Amino acid sequence: MTWDMLTVIGTIAFSISGAIVAMEEDLDIFGVLFLGFITAFGGGAIRNILIGVPVSELWSQGLFFQVSFFSILLFVLFPNILMKHWHSWGSFFDAIGLASFAMQGALFAVEMGHPLSAVIVAAVLTGSGGGLIRDVLANRKPMVLHSEVYALWALVGGLFIGMGWVTGGFGLFLLFVLLVSGRVCSYRFQWKLPHRTIPSM
Amino acid sequence: MTWDMLTVIGTIAFSISGAIVAMEEDLDIFGVLFLGFITAFGGGAIRNILIGVPVSELWSQGLFFQVSFFSILLFVLFPNILMKHWHSWGSFFDAIGLASFAMQGALFAVEMGHPLSAVIVAAVLTGSGGGLIRDVLANRKPMVLHSEVYALWALVGGLFIGMGWVTGGFGLFLLFVLLVSGRVCSYRFQWKLPHRTIPSM
Amino acid sequence: MTWDMLTVIGTIAFSISGAIVAMEEDLDIFGVLFLGFITAFGGGAIRNILIGVPVSELWSQGLFFQVSFFSILLFVLFPNILMKHWHSWGSFFDAIGLASFAMQGALFAVEMGHPLSAVIVAAVLTGSGGGLIRDVLANRKPMVLHSEVYALWALVGGLFIGMGWVTGGFGLFLLFVLLVSGRVCSYRFQWKLPHRTIPSM
Repeated sequence: MTWDMLTVIGTIAFSISGAIVAMEEDLDIFGVLFLGFITAFGGGAIRNILIGVPVSELWSQGLFFQVSFFSILLFVLFPNILMKHWHSWGSFFDAIGLASFAMQGALFAVEMGHPLSAVIVAAVLTGSGGGLIRDVLANRKPMVLHSEVYALWALVGGLFIGMGWVTGGFGLFLLFVLLVSGRVCSYRFQWKLPHRTIPSM
Repeated sequence: MTWDMLTVIGTIAFSISGAIVAMEEDLDIFGVLFLGFITAFGGGAIRNILIGVPVSELWSQGLFFQVSFFSILLFVLFPNILMKHWHSWGSFFDAIGLASFAMQGALFAVEMGHPLSAVIVAAVLTGSGGGLIRDVLANRKPMVLHSEVYALWALVGGLFIGMGWVTGGFGLFLLFVLLVSGRVCSYRFQWKLPHRTIPSM
Repeated sequence: MTWDMLTVIGTIAFSISGAIVAMEEDLDIFGVLFLGFITAFGGGAIRNILIGVPVSELWSQGLFFQVSFFSILLFVLFPNILMKHWHSWGSFFDAIGLASFAMQGALFAVEMGHPLSAVIVAAVLTGSGGGLIRDVLANRKPMVLHSEVYALWALVGGLFIGMGWVTGGFGLFLLFVLLVSGRVCSYRFQWKLPHRTIPSM
């Protein structure tokens, strides 16, 4: 129930982030819907494939597909009105999506009896894989790999769950708060991971 | 039998469209073959993975692999001669491929008992997924997401089949004619879907 | 045992090639690790999916994950020292990775009873798929499709194994030597496959 609420918020945030990139790149309305969808569901789909979740699982998310569809539609119809609110709320919603998607991805992998490596990959892909595909399709350098700390928070979630450091409901709640706060601080205070550039060969 | 004929036409068209992009991007002969193949078979492969078709299905298309290989080879050997005919026939063949691939993808998903969402995704990926991968590998913005109406016709095919609006052979024939005509009109008369651009943040 | 040794060398080479591209593109330390990993394991993962290897296989490579992780870490910490050695050894190690990954991919596909087409695709993807994904994520035109002969050597490996021209240990050894030498000559003497460029439409 709580997961479902968080997933709705994350789905809206991811869908709209895809739609925004698509509109920035001057894609048509089909491209906007396509990129919104793939940002919301692409990470989970790849995770499913890599950890062996049956495909039927993917297609049982009818409700979330509709949430995604109508959020994108609303956003495309009233971009100016919604964009204003998006600036204040969008990144926060996105942080909720990042945290809850990553944690659910990790729990999925644990449930299937996979080792730590798989749990971490599942968390990272579910949390940040959609954004990665979004940027690749828009022909951009993936934001999650060079901007303010993003995918690392998904990795942290995967690590805590994969190591069994959190299990019960309260532990998961604390982890969720940690990840959301971490991400919020990252874009608020421009936390960046160290870079070490080398010249192109 | 009829499907097989249409699939041959579509395979030729998609392979050559991949080869053309590869030659425009100055890839080597291996890259040309690679991009041709992936344009023809990439969409179907992703669809298979997402709706759970056994992998053996993918590898039973030996005949179509050969059709693809020899079309690309011929095109690379005689680009100037063939390019002339391609300008008149290429887009029409491509429309046939789009329509027949999308419809077969949708029928596949229906056969496997998937819900409407899966049928539509299967249609869109089978019809336009190859072109999407082609452009991503060539480091271009995906044509199917911002040019004249393309992937939408695949979606329409998926919708009609997924909703059960067409079933028998004649209904499928009419749908096929509709999709091909729709796509031909789109590039003939430059039908574009509405865009709503926003400035980059 | 021998395969394991070669896989270690290939894993190191592929991981570091991913890390180098990531550092050239100014990704952060997470992006460097991510791109290193995906270069080393991405090709094999896609091959597994396309030829139907169970996902558990992917997650049983714990040792190689660690090899990858520590090579990347070392490289990021001491890029200047290691870069010097890398210029002399890197491409040679990479050739070993290309040959051994391609051959193992092909043998996998043969073992599963797939036809020649699948064996060749498995060889090409395992040998050069990681480099392909690396370049796509870094928003570059895939090196393996337009630079000195690369993926073709993987294809040759797949062809020899798929046709049953080599089977026993000695035949495999000779093929390995052929592929490595071929790749070394390719970058040493700038062997390129023919290009045939056409102007963009």
